[in-house]
Amino acid sequence: MKNTQKPTSAPVHKYRPFHEQIRVDLPDRTWPSKRIETAPRWCAVDLRDGNQALIDPMSPERKRVMFDLLVQMGYKEIEVGFPSASQTDFDFVRQLIEEDLIPDDVTIQVLTQAREHLIQRTYEAIAGAKQAIVHLYNSTSVLQREVVFRTDQQGIVDIALEGARLCKKYEATIPDTDVYYEYSPESYTGTELEFALRICNEVLEIFQPTPERKVILNLPATVEMATPNVYADSIEWMSRNLNHRENVILSLHPHNDRGTAVAAAELGYMAGADRIEGCLFGNGERTGNVDLVALGVNLLTQGIDPQIDFSDIDQVKRTVEYCNQLPVPERSPWAGDLVFTAFSGSHQDAIKKGFEAMEARAAAEGKSIDDIEWAVPYLPIDPKDLGRSYEAVIRVNSQSGKGGVAYLLKADHALDLPRKLQIEFSGVVQTRTDAEGGEVSSAQIWDIFTDEYLPTTEDDQRWGRFELLSTRSSSDMSGDVSLEVTLRDGDSTHPASAVGNGPVAAFLEIVRAQGFDVTLYDYVEHALSSGGDAQAAAYIELQVDDQRLWGVGIDNDISTASLKAIVSGVNRAIRTRQRSGALAGV
Amino acid sequence: MKNTQKPTSAPVHKYRPFHEQIRVDLPDRTWPSKRIETAPRWCAVDLRDGNQALIDPMSPERKRVMFDLLVQMGYKEIEVGFPSASQTDFDFVRQLIEEDLIPDDVTIQVLTQAREHLIQRTYEAIAGAKQAIVHLYNSTSVLQREVVFRTDQQGIVDIALEGARLCKKYEATIPDTDVYYEYSPESYTGTELEFALRICNEVLEIFQPTPERKVILNLPATVEMATPNVYADSIEWMSRNLNHRENVILSLHPHNDRGTAVAAAELGYMAGADRIEGCLFGNGERTGNVDLVALGVNLLTQGIDPQIDFSDIDQVKRTVEYCNQLPVPERSPWAGDLVFTAFSGSHQDAIKKGFEAMEARAAAEGKSIDDIEWAVPYLPIDPKDLGRSYEAVIRVNSQSGKGGVAYLLKADHALDLPRKLQIEFSGVVQTRTDAEGGEVSSAQIWDIFTDEYLPTTEDDQRWGRFELLSTRSSSDMSGDVSLEVTLRDGDSTHPASAVGNGPVAAFLEIVRAQGFDVTLYDYVEHALSSGGDAQAAAYIELQVDDQRLWGVGIDNDISTASLKAIVSGVNRAIRTRQRSGALAGV
Repeated sequence: MKNTQKPTSAPVHKYRPFHEQIRVDLPDRTWPSKRIETAPRWCAVDLRDGNQALIDPMSPERKRVMFDLLVQMGYKEIEVGFPSASQTDFDFVRQLIEEDLIPDDVTIQVLTQAREHLIQRTYEAIAGAKQAIVHLYNSTSVLQREVVFRTDQQGIVDIALEGARLCKKYEATIPDTDVYYEYSPESYTGTELEFALRICNEVLEIFQPTPERKVILNLPATVEMATPNVYADSIEWMSRNLNHRENVILSLHPHNDRGTAVAAAELGYMAGADRIEGCLFGNGERTGNVDLVALGVNLLTQGIDPQIDFSDIDQVKRTVEYCNQLPVPERSPWAGDLVFTAFSGSHQDAIKKGFEAMEARAAAEGKSIDDIEWAVPYLPIDPKDLGRSYEAVIRVNSQSGKGGVAYLLKADHALDLPRKLQIEFSGVVQTRTDAEGGEVSSAQIWDIFTDEYLPTTEDDQRWGRFELLSTRSSSDMSGDVSLEVTLRDGDSTHPASAVGNGPVAAFLEIVRAQGFDVTLYDYVEHALSSGGDAQAAAYIELQVDDQRLWGVGIDNDISTASLKAIVSGVNRAIRTRQRSGALAGV
Repeated sequence: MKNTQKPTSAPVHKYRPFHEQIRVDLPDRTWPSKRIETAPRWCAVDLRDGNQALIDPMSPERKRVMFDLLVQMGYKEIEVGFPSASQTDFDFVRQLIEEDLIPDDVTIQVLTQAREHLIQRTYEAIAGAKQAIVHLYNSTSVLQREVVFRTDQQGIVDIALEGARLCKKYEATIPDTDVYYEYSPESYTGTELEFALRICNEVLEIFQPTPERKVILNLPATVEMATPNVYADSIEWMSRNLNHRENVILSLHPHNDRGTAVAAAELGYMAGADRIEGCLFGNGERTGNVDLVALGVNLLTQGIDPQIDFSDIDQVKRTVEYCNQLPVPERSPWAGDLVFTAFSGSHQDAIKKGFEAMEARAAAEGKSIDDIEWAVPYLPIDPKDLGRSYEAVIRVNSQSGKGGVAYLLKADHALDLPRKLQIEFSGVVQTRTDAEGGEVSSAQIWDIFTDEYLPTTEDDQRWGRFELLSTRSSSDMSGDVSLEVTLRDGDSTHPASAVGNGPVAAFLEIVRAQGFDVTLYDYVEHALSSGGDAQAAAYIELQVDDQRLWGVGIDNDISTASLKAIVSGVNRAIRTRQRSGALAGV
């Protein structure tokens, strides 16, 4: 079988291979024989590098939500902005300090260029903080020296050293703040290694690291330019050759231009680094920074505590999507909507057998299934440990041409189901049609959908325990909403009321008062555009006691549609419970 | 600065590190000193591994579009399905063969399990093809042996050997087809290396590879279980120890569970592999297969011809999104909407200086800028080489609270701009407000938007050269649409007509007849849900002569909205040309 691939007309002559630009030569590298055994120091740069790469940068409110999330997850070093370059960032840093929002064990980090008025402004920003990292950078690459700064190596060193001296000078203006330092030779990957070493060593002489006051040297793959092993080689070389190595915290900051930032971070950490800067789900300039979620959960799968809380990954994802106004992709490692979904029959079969084997083993050892080693084919982690569940989807419609479930609901009923509800509903369709086999028509799918999620219109066939008969809400514009509803509960009808920051929150209170432990996990709504009327659909993912499921509501009023979706979810949870109870003979 | 990170309650005790499961020991590895210098043999598995991971698997029509795309891009080995497991796949393979849709230099590949009725059916599927690769697999991992197959190593070897013998047996039934073989020890990453080697060597003895008829051994990271250097070590070990190595095509099939599939493929290729299987934009089970676009364009940036055509990446992306019904993420390497966008002022400044330096150098050398080495900070590739452009976005609204441009247009005017139009429009806002500074109000943004993209309603201020005064379209249901319009062109009015497969295609013909070289690049529409009326918005990305830009149309009729969007784009192109002409004194 000959290789018949042909040359293209791509202008390969325009591109010089990395090894002809920068020499990285370390034949006696040791990192490929190393293994990761503990979590690195993490630094989350979502509020700076991540934020500066958003079409719609975070508002102060979204910044605050992101900061609280990072703190709650366990990040202890958080780059909160570039206060000398942005008034919004400056104001945000002041807010954090003046409103005392920074826990004692968290250190904020601020970025600055090496210019006096920017450095002065940076120290004004952090005045009053208990501690802070001042992150000084200047660009050192061959290309930037030539085309941006038009100076030689000495000129670039002078910029860095002058910046470092100015930092020490202004440090004296805020004696009550513990100031630590980080220096980045920006565009490090395009810098000759010998020069990167020289500038780092000279900066260290000014910052004078000590065991009690180590200095962070951050070596960014500002642009990812080569395979990740080359970055690791360069890190090992730097780690071997740096002065004051024992008092330096060697930090990585990989970007993802080539799609290998996670690998660059892991191999670089094996090569001797101590610390990794990145963003949740890999937000950041262009292709983004390294993904802190991938790095952290990768550790957990090896039995290493990431020292970061990923136990409710969906909530983390939802919050980040709100802050960044960018979706987390369906296949994003450990967190995407599709990553715990098995579509193939043989995968599903193997997973099922894996679960059965674990149950048998736990029983034999007299242990809980949560205390024995996780070993299920195709699932490198127990989705439960991230607050997710394993989602099996059988390819209902592979025989039905372009009649995918989601496609048909959208084309024929203008319903645009969220990805995870699509997965759930595909399972429902499969269960209902298992017996019959063959093609599933659009009409059948709609019947199944309405029967499962929507109240039937037929009077004699009541769909679920609860039904919403009337609603009334009022707000005094203070932010709180009072909600009064009339609920049918089985054959009886009764009024109920509650207060919340919106009608959904208030209604969840009403549901809780009926004895259900209910939490909202996801919420999507849209107008139904097909009929030209103003109907709206709401999709709500709920945890009802021990079940995670979706509800759907459709109404002329979007707010009522949301409440109906909650009723839909709660009724489905009750039905499922009754069904399994019936099966178990309870 | 102490590390204050704290242990979490994550159940680390459930997870056994990879190195305690599988021993990979290669201290004398050579791959870290290797470099990639030529393209591997590619095999695109979008129609099999990719397709089986879709919520809505491809219809025959979408399958056909994907196949044609892969062929057009230059892939010569294409896994087209699992015909014995799916009637749709079987029918598709038959269609390809019976309608003679496979170019002579393209080899289709079909997957089969090692069971007689499946193998028999597989040969029925490929009968009549000029050549085909039969891809036989069975699962070999410790875990699958234990919990799924409940047999020992010999039992697993027997399955593989029996499968290989059956393949040879049924091969005799289709003497007119050149049959090649691929064997995959599925779940290879969870298999003891010695056992993987044994089963591969024993299968080779049945397939009897020769220089003319090599056999593909494919070593899949069915689940990615360790850092990518470990996969590379295992590949180098296998490559050293396999029998018949010179007649084996060693193939990689990395999945992306840990986010390091691109790295695993690159390091594995350096470690001695010859071939890589993957999917465009990394579609595939769970987190997906390795991304063939990332791998291919990574080669181009090193001056290596990928032997695949990426010169119109947007068209590739659009087609794949249509086939998979899944979006390509904004930060997907080399192709996402945001990857050639610089938001930070210092990045934009450096890029600008990089372009200027290239122009100066080209002039000095008397060459075209396309013939000199590409060297622009923050842009590792010339976006033009992928059919894209460099998109600068200045953070207009960092001072305006939650008033991001896109947010305000959506909240106040129900317009949901596509990502790339958001980027374009942010630049427009910036240009218009540069002089004034300060916060930009929602009303100002709306004024700028209507002035830039929509015809003004004021009679005395004509917005652009063209205006659509009336349209009439008719269709005889044959697929063709006849469109008649009345166009205002400056001060005159004239009728025009054309035929196309839809009103948009027909109208583009009309525009071309006015002397414009116009191509449609992207098309998004939605209903305006705010007012409860049935208005629709259409956004169209056009190439008009040498300009790539967006047009916007709003109308009660969605079809008319599309035509208005084209007019909007063409008028904007004319205005830009006039403006730059005026500046240049033309």
